[in-house]
Order: sequence, then structure tokens, then C-alpha cells
Amino acid sequence: MAEAWDLCIEEDLSRMEEIIADAARSENPELTEMCSYVLQAQGKRLRPAVCLLSYLACGGEDMEKPVMIAAALEIIHNATLVHDDINDEAELRRGRKALYKEYALSKSIVTGDFLLAIGFRLVGKTSPELAEYIVEAATSMGIGEFNQSDFEYDGEVSESDYMEIVNGKTARLIESSAKCGAFLAGSDIAVIDSLGEFALKIGIAFQIVDDVLDVIGDPGSTGKPVGNDILEGKPTLPIIFAIQDEEHGDRIRELFEDRGLTQEEVEHTIGLMKQTDFLERCMATAEDLVREGKRALEVLEDSRYKDSLYALADFILERDR
Amino acid sequence: MAEAWDLCIEEDLSRMEEIIADAARSENPELTEMCSYVLQAQGKRLRPAVCLLSYLACGGEDMEKPVMIAAALEIIHNATLVHDDINDEAELRRGRKALYKEYALSKSIVTGDFLLAIGFRLVGKTSPELAEYIVEAATSMGIGEFNQSDFEYDGEVSESDYMEIVNGKTARLIESSAKCGAFLAGSDIAVIDSLGEFALKIGIAFQIVDDVLDVIGDPGSTGKPVGNDILEGKPTLPIIFAIQDEEHGDRIRELFEDRGLTQEEVEHTIGLMKQTDFLERCMATAEDLVREGKRALEVLEDSRYKDSLYALADFILERDR
Repeated sequence: MAEAWDLCIEEDLSRMEEIIADAARSENPELTEMCSYVLQAQGKRLRPAVCLLSYLACGGEDMEKPVMIAAALEIIHNATLVHDDINDEAELRRGRKALYKEYALSKSIVTGDFLLAIGFRLVGKTSPELAEYIVEAATSMGIGEFNQSDFEYDGEVSESDYMEIVNGKTARLIESSAKCGAFLAGSDIAVIDSLGEFALKIGIAFQIVDDVLDVIGDPGSTGKPVGNDILEGKPTLPIIFAIQDEEHGDRIRELFEDRGLTQEEVEHTIGLMKQTDFLERCMATAEDLVREGKRALEVLEDSRYKDSLYALADFILERDR
Repeated sequence: MAEAWDLCIEEDLSRMEEIIADAARSENPELTEMCSYVLQAQGKRLRPAVCLLSYLACGGEDMEKPVMIAAALEIIHNATLVHDDINDEAELRRGRKALYKEYALSKSIVTGDFLLAIGFRLVGKTSPELAEYIVEAATSMGIGEFNQSDFEYDGEVSESDYMEIVNGKTARLIESSAKCGAFLAGSDIAVIDSLGEFALKIGIAFQIVDDVLDVIGDPGSTGKPVGNDILEGKPTLPIIFAIQDEEHGDRIRELFEDRGLTQEEVEHTIGLMKQTDFLERCMATAEDLVREGKRALEVLEDSRYKDSLYALADFILERDR
């Protein structure tokens, strides 16, 4: 868990874990259990790290509010994962059964709603003025999910379609994590927007790397079976670039558009993809985004927290493959 | 649609419908279509009426904010219905196919989340200080749904278990509708709490009548098949009272606890229930609640709006059977 970049917020992240554990408790024991199942699965806590480091890098000192908001962001993120897994019919999440596979589907839908509500409650109690950033991101997620569905099993999907999908689905909540941190530190609007731009860019890069790992990752460290996105017809940048390959593109497109691939055919598709330059192009795109994101941080004075934001951005490119 | 009690807020309700229609629009055409499908199904608009009349009865004059909040409450309520129908495997809602039956399940889950987010966004933009009332109600709904599941097909369920379930599932959002109205009118905390008590009580009565209509209602006017709650093992007050019957109680309990009833057996159960005093006892309970609720309005000065709140309370007892 502990990455180089979160050493300077280690204590704050521990306090955040306590707040998350507290917030998940309710008078219904099974609901508490299901919330804990989700929240204790120890994700990367990327959104909290972005929020806390943005706050510190903007000169914030009192950690109370940012830690609460970081907890709220992580809870809201997890709420959306619960529903995403149902929608994607995912079996696994972070190497364990998805919530709706371990418990009932109907209770999982309610648990997602409950987590969303307690996330918003935490925002309202801490800093109601941040609600707009966060709720705006939550609405974008819905739009992103619909845009993604529109291109399922559709080889016509373009790089700009992909950017629009990922923007809503993933990057906007990461953007709002940074904006919340900067806002709480009392930064002016130009700085808040710059931090937002940084986070939006690295958020897209994060999703690109995630999509790359679906093709070439080690299931042992990603916690998900390889080729899952191909099986489900998800429009990802690896597929988009692979389809553009002169030699293998047409065949990859045919396979991608097939709704009934066997596991063998998925592996065959991956084999063909590996003969294209999808990996180089994806990583180059992600690197460009990280570079642009870092550039947006130039407005900040130098500090160890600014360095940590740089390190966090670099970490995104170096996740386990 | 137009009931006696909403004549004095007819124009405001029309403006609210426009706000709801606007809020449902997004850049994704199918998402917009699905949101419209849900929001234009013309429910009873009970929560908006409670909010607007509470505001007026507390002396509020400028309708702008309360109309926005009324829209937000109705959107949030509808968001929960979308997910409830999935959880209950309901076929119909307001006489039409449930959203997830007309569209895809996964998109329906996202639509519910999106509606929840735009509801919260509307609250945040209008009066962030109201978020706490509303989010609190949203968390209670989750707890209520879990409590309800705990007693599915369980003849041991008691009247007080039922009250706790309904409190969370239905009444808390109606309570917060009244509190929002009173708060916006600038009322002091005692008045806000009294309006909340009024709405909580009539909210429980509303659910009791709803549960009675499931047993004796006309599917043509309820929009739902008769006996649905029995089929699904829902713990309702009609069942609780019927099980207490000396002559038929044991047999009704056996049938209620059976998870595989045929439609014929459901009708047989209803036949037995009609030989008990469940209807009189349910309506007496609902009448008591309405009476207590009205008593809580004594803090208000007399006005046509106070009279409308009384009329609204009475309407709850007189819904089509």
C-alpha cells in the first residue's frame, strides 16, 4: 500500500481510514457488514491522496476538514464501484468476490445508494460549499457510463470518444478531489483550476494504464482476469489503437465486435494486439497526459508536497504490469 | 391529478415540473430519455406538495427556492423508486413497465444514481444548508430497506418492526420535505420539528394505506397487481394484523412464510385476510397517525395553507381503494 508519495500523508490516511470505518456503521448489522466489505478492500486511495496532497501543496495546514473530505471522496468512489460491478457483471474486485457476488444483488444496490448518501452527508457536514464539485463529478459519471455503453462492441469508437468516456467515468472525480483540496486551502480560482487540470489529466492517464493492464497485466496483482474488457466489448484505448494497425487491425476489430468470444478467442485477440504498437502508443499518450498535468502545477510554490504530487503522477505510469 | 389540497400550489407545481424536465436533460440522449420516462410518469407529487404547503403555512412568500427544493425531493424520490423496482423485481410502476423492464438493468442502475446526483446537485445549488435533512433521509432509506429484507417471509414481524421499516423506507423523506419547507420560510427549530412530526406521521399513514391497497385495491387505479406484497413476502401491517387473527391467523402465517405461492394461493390468502379485522385495524392505525400529525400543526397560525395541509392529511386516508 504505502507508496513513496504518500509517506508525508501516512498519518492523515490512517485517520481517514478510521473516519471511513465509522461512517460505514449503521443500525443494521448486515448493512454495516456489507459497507465494511467494500470499504476495507483497501484500494489505492488515489482520490484521498490527490485531495490531501493538493491541500498541502496549496499551503493548507489544518488537516481536519481535508481528511473528512478525503474520506467522503473515497466512500463515493466505492459506492460507484459497487454499482459498476453489477452493471459489468464483474466477478472480482481487488482480488475478492464483487459485493453482489458475495451478498444479494438487491442488497448490493441499496448498499451502493447508502454509501453514496453517507459520502454526500460527510461532505455536507464538513464543507457544504464543496458539494457542487463532487455532485458535478457524480453526474458526469452517469453520463460517462452511458457514453461507454453506446460504444460497446463497436469498432468505430475513436480516440476522442474514449477521452470523453473516461473524462466522465473516471477523471472528473479525481479532478474534483484536487479542487476540493485546493479550495479548502483557500486558494484562488486560478490555482483551484490548475490543480483540477493536473488531476483531470493524470486521471485519464490512470484509466489508460488500467485499460492497458487489462490486456497485459498480471491477474495476481490487478485482481482481475486478463482480457475482461475485450470479453465485455468495452471501448478502451488499447483496442482503439490495435484496430488502427495496418496488418492485424481488421481482424482485431472483427473479434472485438463479436459478442460471444470464448476465453481462447480473447487470448487470441490479445496475441494479435501484442503484434501491434498499441502498448507504445497507449503509454506515450499516458506519458503526454502526465507531462501536461505536471505542467499545470507550475503555479504552485516548490514544496515537498508539490514533489509528492509529481511522484504520484509518475506512479501512475509505473503501476505493476 | 389535481387534488383539492393542491389548488393553491397548482402554479408552483407546474413550474416545478419544468425544473424537473430541465434537470433530467443531459448530453447523452438515452440517459435523458430514461430520466424522462421516470420523471414524467406523474406520481402523486406528495413530497413536493408537503414541502411547498409547509413553506406557505409557515409564512414563506418567495416561491423560488421552495419550488427548486420540491423538484429536488421529487427527483430523489424517483431515483429510489428506480432502484426499488429492480430490488423488488417489480414489473409495473404507475401502470407502466418499470424502467429496468423497458430498458436495460445496468443502465437503469446508472439512471437511478444519476437522478440521485442531480437531485443532490439541485439542493446544493439552491440551499446547501438543507442537504443534511435530505441526505439524512436518504441514508435512512437504505437502513429501512435492509430492515425490510430482514423480515421477508417472516411471520414473527411485529407492529413495531413495521413502524421502524416504514419510518426509514418512506416517512423520513416526507418528514424532510416538510422540514425543508419550514426551514426555508425562516421558522424556528420548534416549528420545523413540528412540521417534521406532522409529515413523519402522515408519511407512515400513507404507507399503511399503500399496503392496504396492495390487498384490497383496484389494479386499474393502483397500477400494480393485487397481492404483490404477499407474493414477495413483504412485511406489511395488513399481514401483521391478519396473522394476529384467532381463527385464520396461523394459516395466513403459513401462507405468508411460503416463498413459492402461486397466484391462486395469493388470492386464497387475501380471501382469508378479508375474514379478519385487518382492514379496520390498519385504517384505525392510519387515522390515529393522521390525527396525531394534524395535532402537531397546532403551532401554526390559521391560514388557507394550514387548511391545505389538513386536507392533504385527510386525502391520505381517502385514496382510491
